[in-house]
Amino acid sequence: MSVLQLSLAAKSAAPALAAAGSQLKNKALFSIADALEESISDILAANQKDIQNAEAAGISKSLIDRLSLTESRIRSIADAVRQVCNLEDPVGQVLGGSVRPNGLNIRKVSVPLGLVGIIYEARPNVTVDAAALCLKSGNACLLRGGKEAINSNIALISVMRKAVGAVGLPEDAVSFITDTSRNSATEMMRLSGVLDVLIPRGGAGLISSVVNNSTVPVIETGTGNCHIYIDSSADIDMAANIAANAKCSRPSVCNAAETFLVHKSCAEDFLNKVKPLLDNYSVEIYGCDITQSILGSCVIPATDEDFSTEYLDYKVAIKVVDSIDEAIDHINKYGTRHSECIVTRDYFAANSFSQRVDAAAVYVNASTRFTDGGEFGLGAEIGISTQKLHARGPMGLSHLTTYKYIISGDGQIR
Amino acid sequence: MSVLQLSLAAKSAAPALAAAGSQLKNKALFSIADALEESISDILAANQKDIQNAEAAGISKSLIDRLSLTESRIRSIADAVRQVCNLEDPVGQVLGGSVRPNGLNIRKVSVPLGLVGIIYEARPNVTVDAAALCLKSGNACLLRGGKEAINSNIALISVMRKAVGAVGLPEDAVSFITDTSRNSATEMMRLSGVLDVLIPRGGAGLISSVVNNSTVPVIETGTGNCHIYIDSSADIDMAANIAANAKCSRPSVCNAAETFLVHKSCAEDFLNKVKPLLDNYSVEIYGCDITQSILGSCVIPATDEDFSTEYLDYKVAIKVVDSIDEAIDHINKYGTRHSECIVTRDYFAANSFSQRVDAAAVYVNASTRFTDGGEFGLGAEIGISTQKLHARGPMGLSHLTTYKYIISGDGQIR
Repeated sequence: MSVLQLSLAAKSAAPALAAAGSQLKNKALFSIADALEESISDILAANQKDIQNAEAAGISKSLIDRLSLTESRIRSIADAVRQVCNLEDPVGQVLGGSVRPNGLNIRKVSVPLGLVGIIYEARPNVTVDAAALCLKSGNACLLRGGKEAINSNIALISVMRKAVGAVGLPEDAVSFITDTSRNSATEMMRLSGVLDVLIPRGGAGLISSVVNNSTVPVIETGTGNCHIYIDSSADIDMAANIAANAKCSRPSVCNAAETFLVHKSCAEDFLNKVKPLLDNYSVEIYGCDITQSILGSCVIPATDEDFSTEYLDYKVAIKVVDSIDEAIDHINKYGTRHSECIVTRDYFAANSFSQRVDAAAVYVNASTRFTDGGEFGLGAEIGISTQKLHARGPMGLSHLTTYKYIISGDGQIR
Repeated sequence: MSVLQLSLAAKSAAPALAAAGSQLKNKALFSIADALEESISDILAANQKDIQNAEAAGISKSLIDRLSLTESRIRSIADAVRQVCNLEDPVGQVLGGSVRPNGLNIRKVSVPLGLVGIIYEARPNVTVDAAALCLKSGNACLLRGGKEAINSNIALISVMRKAVGAVGLPEDAVSFITDTSRNSATEMMRLSGVLDVLIPRGGAGLISSVVNNSTVPVIETGTGNCHIYIDSSADIDMAANIAANAKCSRPSVCNAAETFLVHKSCAEDFLNKVKPLLDNYSVEIYGCDITQSILGSCVIPATDEDFSTEYLDYKVAIKVVDSIDEAIDHINKYGTRHSECIVTRDYFAANSFSQRVDAAAVYVNASTRFTDGGEFGLGAEIGISTQKLHARGPMGLSHLTTYKYIISGDGQIR
């Protein structure tokens, strides 16, 4: 089937999903979870093909690790699906309403978006995760994964479609594009009027390609060039702990810090305190002139490009600044509007930074690593939005809905 | 200045607007309103040039009427600006928050979008209206109006910029593109990373051009192919009144009805009842075979194109349907997700229609003409969104904001 045919089939399944109540949707989710566990050997066999292809293609170990499924990983994926059942149904919430002076009774009610498209890369668990969240929020989905995981994805999708069909919902509610060519991604981006939203999950290249080419409304996710600013009044121990945690605890994720900005008055104290913490992880330091003069020849001179780069690695850029204003200007210039932090004891500095930094999440005295649906109490997470429309920051189930107004009258005319 | 230079100047004014409190923003709005009234003769002189150019170009009378300003129209525009002062400030609202188990204190706070782009057509009052709503919501704006109103717009913008500057806010917060070529519109659509949102206000051609070409997030507005479905159980007098009102009270607006769908069991009663009401406005009827057989030769045979057309005129398409299911399918196929109505006495029909019709506003027993920011109690309206992300239906000041999370800690790491 062509991408257009697949999308139309998925679209035609959307009304049945929208009309399904929580009980039926949860039944489908349990059905998926059970079916995944019953199909472990088939899924592992398919995954084995992907791993062999990846090894033959000389793909990096860390990518192969992200691609690999094991029995216990499949059981975890199934458990995650069961967890989604416990979340509150985001559909049918009455978000507001009033009786107008003319007697019209207006209710604003949450409804599914309709058909959600998701383009993602290597990890096969995203296939199940995304389908489960779309299903719970009453949406049909059209998924397109990376070519590395194609065999695993086809196996997972086949299991999920049968499980959804077994409870009486249309199998096309979980649709998947098997064509992994660039062309199929481009076609997906032009499905304006069929897809209600397109969510890219992956690296900066994928996301900018979707933003530049899509006629479907897009939710940008996950590019995080995050900063820790150490104010002149900072508690230096706290600053070093937060900075090292934000950089080192999991450098490959979008909420990890990439640049430290340090007020000149505490630069020497801070840098000497944080250096051994970074050394524990063999972090490479790209620093400005002052950083070089304080920490010596271990510092690689930083270029403008370093300040623009999301390293996603054990590397950090460091710049000494003259003032909080310089720090805020730097962040608003180089940041990706994801997560930003100030470490300070100063009440006015905390407020000024919180107000003037343009980002989804602004932290005072805490690590940027907390930007996460679970940490924010949203339950599940479909991604972290770095755009301003519709959703900003961690996106939960409610962000997979829109609303409609239902207006009841007794003959009102205008 | 080029479109890019103008946009960067406007962008640099955004932080000052975002930081301005309600008092300062209201002072700027009063300053604009007063300045408009003081400049009536200059504005009218500029408007006169536009009218002369329009007459020389042979532009239609109704378009010239929309273009024309008078002293009383300018005073009304100024009053509308003063009304915006009375609306609640949408910025700084605490939308939610909690203290997490680890002690992190999370607040979700509304903030301005930043720089709002608006592309619109002939009416010069939109220039003032849009600038006032952006200002109140703490946004800088970059406006681009139609070439017919260029002299009026330049005069209005000049007055507003001086008034904004007079209260100490940057004049570039109200920016305007004087280049009315197609090229400048295209450039505006490619300002990804500078414009935070682009809102097209105008005809279907403008809107689809923006949707297909913009890399900036778009809010689609205002295309309304709206339907009135007369159910078998409808009160026929009520149905005729609602249908005639939705069609005739103001056919040029997006919430006017374009098609009536009539259940076969009441088709004869309804059509004979509504016909004289339509005749009062000399409405042309494009009908299906059964409509033709009931109303006779005055009915022009309807084609598929009639059901797809937003007439915006004293024309209506009428189709007799076999069931509510056929009506809902027709609406979901031909509708533009704007406003849809069922007239019925049947409880289950009302619920089924409300749930299954995919539209921003679904009416039971009331005219579609009520889809309007004022009628919904939103105060002001920046447009009526027909998309599902961010805003759906009438958009008030709150839809010109996004939110940020402000997270306060005392050293938390993860």
